[in-house]
Amino acid sequence: MQSLQEKAAEWSGVDAEDAFAIDGTNLYEKLGLQTFISLSTNFYERVYADEEEWFRSIFSKSKKEDAIQNQYEFFVQRMGGPPLYSQRKGHPALIGRHRPFPVTHRAAERWLNHMQQALDATSDIDLDSKTKMLNFFRHTAFFLVAGDELKNQNQAAPCKNCKHPGKHAAV
Amino acid sequence: MQSLQEKAAEWSGVDAEDAFAIDGTNLYEKLGLQTFISLSTNFYERVYADEEEWFRSIFSKSKKEDAIQNQYEFFVQRMGGPPLYSQRKGHPALIGRHRPFPVTHRAAERWLNHMQQALDATSDIDLDSKTKMLNFFRHTAFFLVAGDELKNQNQAAPCKNCKHPGKHAAV
Repeated sequence: MQSLQEKAAEWSGVDAEDAFAIDGTNLYEKLGLQTFISLSTNFYERVYADEEEWFRSIFSKSKKEDAIQNQYEFFVQRMGGPPLYSQRKGHPALIGRHRPFPVTHRAAERWLNHMQQALDATSDIDLDSKTKMLNFFRHTAFFLVAGDELKNQNQAAPCKNCKHPGKHAAV
Repeated sequence: MQSLQEKAAEWSGVDAEDAFAIDGTNLYEKLGLQTFISLSTNFYERVYADEEEWFRSIFSKSKKEDAIQNQYEFFVQRMGGPPLYSQRKGHPALIGRHRPFPVTHRAAERWLNHMQQALDATSDIDLDSKTKMLNFFRHTAFFLVAGDELKNQNQAAPCKNCKHPGKHAAV
């Protein structure tokens, strides 16, 4: 059986070495806190204004300000900065925390499209940093698609009562 | 609704500030790679020899050597060392990767009991480091119990066919 990592690499086209090249440098020290805040702000401005209702609705239960803070705190922590996210919310637990959301291949591509545009719109991100971040984001997005499929496996478990094999409602 | 973090703090008795005090120092630099390898080896020697079959069986699908490597690579990465785990396996995704296992309150307590003994049996871990690590482990163990309960919520979704409210088999 393919591992989460192998699925992420295959679907994203970004292998682990390129995805985790972010660890070979300290992007937080290089770019600074304000750049990460701007990036996440640019990103969610786009997401919450997305013309596609199916995509926009994935985020509709969270306030935009909270989504921005959650994201930039995670990025800062993961890219060499202080552990802002864990101090406030605990382990990133990326798959567990994405559990309520339908992280499909299509959603991953649309997320990445907004992120590419947000990166381009954020000044002070040099090309090398941008490439490293995009590789990390792309691999991670499909890692979460792989994580989402674990959930679907569970939903498809047959009912013990009637043996119905169909999917059950996600909670 | 309580967050994962709030449940972890309540059930473990260790709040986030104490749990993530590991980030206030660099335990990897202080203790060194070999100490982490010894700790995880001591830990899994105990786990795989546990007299309680219900607990031992949780680990029975993994080889002991693999369990040791997965654990010390994660600890090294999380406590200030090189990102050994992500380079080999990707995101820790603690909740997602514990999904196949029944992470109950009872299992968490037994895991922690073995870990306490493993810490005591590993030389070169000073008392301050030991306290920090135990707080981190205790909070994290119950964070995973909270994560496990998300899975149970899903299993309890009623069957769409017959409306049977009972739990469905975990995959």
